[in-house]
Amino acid sequence: MKLSAFGEKFTGKSGIVELMDDLGTALNENPDMIFMGGGNPGRLPEVEAIFQQRLEQIMSDPRQRHSLFGIYQSPQGDKEFREQVAAFLNNQFGWPLCGRNIAVSNGSQSAFFVLYNMFAGLMPDGSHRSVHLPLAPEYIGYGDIGLSENFFTATRPNIELLDKHLFKYHVDFSHLRLGDETGALCVSRPTNPTGNVLTDEEVAHLDDIARSHDIPLFIDGAYGLPFPNILFTDAQPHWNENTILTLSLSKLGLPGVRTGIIVAREDIIHAYTNANTIVNLACGNLGPALAKALFDSGEILSLTRQYVTPFYRERSQQAVQWFRRAAGRFALPHPQTGGRYLPVAMV
Amino acid sequence: MKLSAFGEKFTGKSGIVELMDDLGTALNENPDMIFMGGGNPGRLPEVEAIFQQRLEQIMSDPRQRHSLFGIYQSPQGDKEFREQVAAFLNNQFGWPLCGRNIAVSNGSQSAFFVLYNMFAGLMPDGSHRSVHLPLAPEYIGYGDIGLSENFFTATRPNIELLDKHLFKYHVDFSHLRLGDETGALCVSRPTNPTGNVLTDEEVAHLDDIARSHDIPLFIDGAYGLPFPNILFTDAQPHWNENTILTLSLSKLGLPGVRTGIIVAREDIIHAYTNANTIVNLACGNLGPALAKALFDSGEILSLTRQYVTPFYRERSQQAVQWFRRAAGRFALPHPQTGGRYLPVAMV
Repeated sequence: MKLSAFGEKFTGKSGIVELMDDLGTALNENPDMIFMGGGNPGRLPEVEAIFQQRLEQIMSDPRQRHSLFGIYQSPQGDKEFREQVAAFLNNQFGWPLCGRNIAVSNGSQSAFFVLYNMFAGLMPDGSHRSVHLPLAPEYIGYGDIGLSENFFTATRPNIELLDKHLFKYHVDFSHLRLGDETGALCVSRPTNPTGNVLTDEEVAHLDDIARSHDIPLFIDGAYGLPFPNILFTDAQPHWNENTILTLSLSKLGLPGVRTGIIVAREDIIHAYTNANTIVNLACGNLGPALAKALFDSGEILSLTRQYVTPFYRERSQQAVQWFRRAAGRFALPHPQTGGRYLPVAMV
Repeated sequence: MKLSAFGEKFTGKSGIVELMDDLGTALNENPDMIFMGGGNPGRLPEVEAIFQQRLEQIMSDPRQRHSLFGIYQSPQGDKEFREQVAAFLNNQFGWPLCGRNIAVSNGSQSAFFVLYNMFAGLMPDGSHRSVHLPLAPEYIGYGDIGLSENFFTATRPNIELLDKHLFKYHVDFSHLRLGDETGALCVSRPTNPTGNVLTDEEVAHLDDIARSHDIPLFIDGAYGLPFPNILFTDAQPHWNENTILTLSLSKLGLPGVRTGIIVAREDIIHAYTNANTIVNLACGNLGPALAKALFDSGEILSLTRQYVTPFYRERSQQAVQWFRRAAGRFALPHPQTGGRYLPVAMV
């Protein structure tokens, strides 16, 4: 049997296939091993209990139960859920959003597959556009997502060496040049997997550049703002009409429900919705059903602050401390200060 | 902002977008209306109760609960679920399957998007292949799924006029000719939306043709065999190494969980899994978690026999009866028998 060009490209080995293979095999098939890599979130019993209670409420109400199991969600996502997400973001950050600015996806990866290919690849006039990553390294899951070759371009970062074995990536704006061949800018914030957090100034600068080229700025907030907020620096959430912000329930402890949330201009949401219908028909009901009340009450923020951020902050600090202690033995002269140095962690 | 060629093609109006818009708007936003169209399944309280009990069991077991919420499923699908589905099909029909012959998808539509585009469209040598529908009309959701234009070809059916206002579509094998430009054969059985059921002989003949061209025969069993078995004629389930059979939990009453099941040769499942990882990362856990025990016990068949098939048979017979009564008033001379005739239903 012969495979198409799509078949040849998408069915071969890719970084994300190997990562997910490792994740799946390791955790599902050897649940007792100590698991150090990949994107599977930590277990937060208090947060899991909130979702459990919510699901038990749904089970005890025949109408909600039937909605969970037995009805296709609208292609754009459950209307009430979309309105609650929009109202929450509006209240918190003053973003001028309504339900028509929100779409649901079967997880962020599925959203990126549709959205990136909407803006980059082969253009109707036969030219080719790419998604530009203004700072690399970036998320391994983007790598093979383009329907055409040479789908991504990237700018090398500046690396700032800090004291205490720390370093930080910065966007090198002096080398960031976009031409007509760029269809979108994309950053994950915090960057997956390095943990680097773009400063508010960097985001504003990237937003200006994207706007001046009439292309969208994607901000992948799977680990970011306003939830699950797995970042430990001062950073503000960002959205405007030129931004496509993607959020996810996965790192709140719900990777198994596959729910991504897209926040964008109405015409972009409408276009995404049409494409998502052809590719997926509809999205899973469980994520919106579980999270609906949390957006309505604002509890999504309080559980993030109370459980999620502290859990990861503590583990991050502990890991950095162990690395620092061990790094002393292998340290090199710091290129500026002359002190002993080994970069091990990012801020 | 400019859209890519994919963007232009996939974000425009399509039949499936309009259908899902209608479905979503009608049922979610006006839940009390009487809803006559589209693919939303009927409500079967006894079946819903089985899934409710199963979900309550999951909630009461910390390990199963954490697996439902907090762990990414393997890209191919939960290993235990795949093995149980394979064992069930093996026991029932003697098909030589193991867990490596099964993959999970976020619903059938998502499976078809990946699989059809794997076998048809632009080929690595620059030629173009299409998916051939040996009998049309076919499912509206296929229509726009191809990444390239002219993605489907079809053969007109023979229409057999039967007594009592009935008619039946048959594959017109005398006009079914495949060339090198055909990448796959595809049928839904029963056909969505006409309800026509291909005979076992027609399926065997199509299987021979596909095999002789070294292309797969897709059988879309979303409404079919062995479950949810919404067909009322004598027909046998079909699978062999040249067949890609897709099944779905939707018409058992679970469209909101988005679970499709793919049964195919190991190399096809492996290729699908790699592509699905890039497009979706992983599938939702709810469907496999709910259905797992039903495959293990064989209950999936007994609940189909006891509740699903009879529910739809009764409504189908009632609808045909009403149409027959009404059709008398508009009847035309039957072309062969000369009797009064208006085709209103298919068998």
